[in-house]
Amino acid sequence: MKIHDFDPEMRIVLESGAELKGARVVYETYGRPNADFSNVILVCHALTGDQYAAGTRPDNGKPGWWSGLIGSGKAVDTDRYYVICPNVLGGCAGGTAPSSVNPDTGKVWGMDFPVITVKDMVKVQAELLTALGVHKILCVIGGSMGGMQALEWVKTYPDRVISAVPIASSWRHSAQNIAFNEVGRQAVMADPDWRGGDYESFGVKPVKGLAVARMAAHVTYLSEKALHRKFGRKLQGGDLPYSFDANFQVESYLRYQGSAFTERFDANCYLYITRALDYFDLTAGGKSLAGAFKGVKAKVCLISFSSDWLFPSAESRLIMRALNANAADVSFVEIESDKGHDAFLLDEPEMLTVVKGFIDAVAEDYGVIEERI
Amino acid sequence: MKIHDFDPEMRIVLESGAELKGARVVYETYGRPNADFSNVILVCHALTGDQYAAGTRPDNGKPGWWSGLIGSGKAVDTDRYYVICPNVLGGCAGGTAPSSVNPDTGKVWGMDFPVITVKDMVKVQAELLTALGVHKILCVIGGSMGGMQALEWVKTYPDRVISAVPIASSWRHSAQNIAFNEVGRQAVMADPDWRGGDYESFGVKPVKGLAVARMAAHVTYLSEKALHRKFGRKLQGGDLPYSFDANFQVESYLRYQGSAFTERFDANCYLYITRALDYFDLTAGGKSLAGAFKGVKAKVCLISFSSDWLFPSAESRLIMRALNANAADVSFVEIESDKGHDAFLLDEPEMLTVVKGFIDAVAEDYGVIEERI
Repeated sequence: MKIHDFDPEMRIVLESGAELKGARVVYETYGRPNADFSNVILVCHALTGDQYAAGTRPDNGKPGWWSGLIGSGKAVDTDRYYVICPNVLGGCAGGTAPSSVNPDTGKVWGMDFPVITVKDMVKVQAELLTALGVHKILCVIGGSMGGMQALEWVKTYPDRVISAVPIASSWRHSAQNIAFNEVGRQAVMADPDWRGGDYESFGVKPVKGLAVARMAAHVTYLSEKALHRKFGRKLQGGDLPYSFDANFQVESYLRYQGSAFTERFDANCYLYITRALDYFDLTAGGKSLAGAFKGVKAKVCLISFSSDWLFPSAESRLIMRALNANAADVSFVEIESDKGHDAFLLDEPEMLTVVKGFIDAVAEDYGVIEERI
Repeated sequence: MKIHDFDPEMRIVLESGAELKGARVVYETYGRPNADFSNVILVCHALTGDQYAAGTRPDNGKPGWWSGLIGSGKAVDTDRYYVICPNVLGGCAGGTAPSSVNPDTGKVWGMDFPVITVKDMVKVQAELLTALGVHKILCVIGGSMGGMQALEWVKTYPDRVISAVPIASSWRHSAQNIAFNEVGRQAVMADPDWRGGDYESFGVKPVKGLAVARMAAHVTYLSEKALHRKFGRKLQGGDLPYSFDANFQVESYLRYQGSAFTERFDANCYLYITRALDYFDLTAGGKSLAGAFKGVKAKVCLISFSSDWLFPSAESRLIMRALNANAADVSFVEIESDKGHDAFLLDEPEMLTVVKGFIDAVAEDYGVIEERI
């Protein structure tokens, strides 16, 4: 894990108007930078992701969450590119977040942490890159909330982004998505061990509430077809036990997902990041989507999955039209898959091919890699 | 409210093998019976419904949950038909249920209540009708879980059902539906006030957990489009408050739905009825769907809604094919609507027309009403 601490005298003004005094960003890098940092690929993670995108995770020895996509000889080829993946502001993997210590009080922030937005996350990433000596990035890529960050980069830092690959994402969180997030937040807050967000002081954790939140969210990441294929109505045992235990395999799977999640994620961070997702709206203030993308310079490759009902293809299609209405360089690939929203985290061969083709072509255009045959 | 108590010496053998000693069924009737009870329409309610289908509810003065469909001059015309609507076994509106008193102990059943199934609910309805002197019903109609009961009637009591209208329903609960139910159950059980189901003895109620369960379920009853049209990203106030209050109207709406639900529904009953939904599968034991409907005699009119993602039209289509493969008298109408699963509870004009046309035609065929012009 790499750590960057901003000068504590530095004021990071958030979208809300609140200020952070300095900040810690934790990040990982894969591959080696060119002398002029012309081969930097910024990887943005999703709601419950972190900086460990590739290789082997140091914390549990498992593969990074996007190790199918990123690595030596892979779609995002670390023999060619220098990959930087920061944990987002508000994430619970070591950086400044509700789970970190408020320097003013010496106590964990908890719910005193200011509400953050996707724009704030991107701002901190931009400051990190500046501090690392990287002005311009060859490509910013991410799925779901990572895709939102990629779109925010393209919009807010047109001179710093050569290309972007927003996957399974949207320009704003829909009413349905806000609704599901709110269910999750209420599940956390309903847990008496949440203690108004102050669970740290009490030495407890709202694990039950957070597990329910994760279970609800997890169902939305999969398609009905994927659930049917994976589990259908298969029972845990041979016969219906007429009980409230996990009778069906899908129940057992969900309970496991919920419970495992509480071991790796902080409840308050979950509240803050889902809030950031809900607040995301490039058309806020009545802007048109085409208006939102005015002045965009990056080449954009949008990817969606046909069975993703959380971030449906139709939304990527609208982004494509809005970019097109700015004469931007945009392409859109809808990948046929029955795996739902989670498909972006899986080794979908077509996604790997599309990402590789696009990034290598951009790199070639910019002289970062040698001409491909 | 009408009450029927079965003889306490009567043993109701449930699908699980457990036995109930007698049972209380509460029900409502609308309209007047013919001398030979040839004009009986059985209305089956959904998960959180009850016996107050039409007219004005005696408990709160509001209209019955299907008062748009049932009444004088309406699609189910109480000037012509005698409508019987029982609260299901396990429902919390006054009948035998986890919330009722176990006659053996004198205490509320709670989680000692045996696990029940849709087949059990229908069995109790059949016993009720027998006790009321009704052997054959002109039509059994219901939406969602009510539609499951209608299908179960058609399958299990072929000689007692002349026609059926299963709306927005299926022959089995899908993996996705089981998953969402499990989220709700875990939310209830995560509430410390649930007390292992024994909350009654402690004088508390798991209202927070039950509210979260209802919120999660409620999102699934609506379509993404309906949520978008109704709420979109509309805020409660003028500006983003950067807080965890209900900032968006959809959040406020959901919180209200969750909280209001806890005032009218019992948490353990919610667990039991969702379990019954999950267990429902006419093809259990490896039967084909066509095989499941062998021997069906009723005329069946299936209705689905195009935007219902909980019980998609494709499932009604498969039921139609399976009935057709038995040379049964079956029709299927998919209604274009963007209102999602909840559409069956709304005054969808096409649904009202289809129901009226079908029931009146059946009634005419059987000489229950005079020939229509």
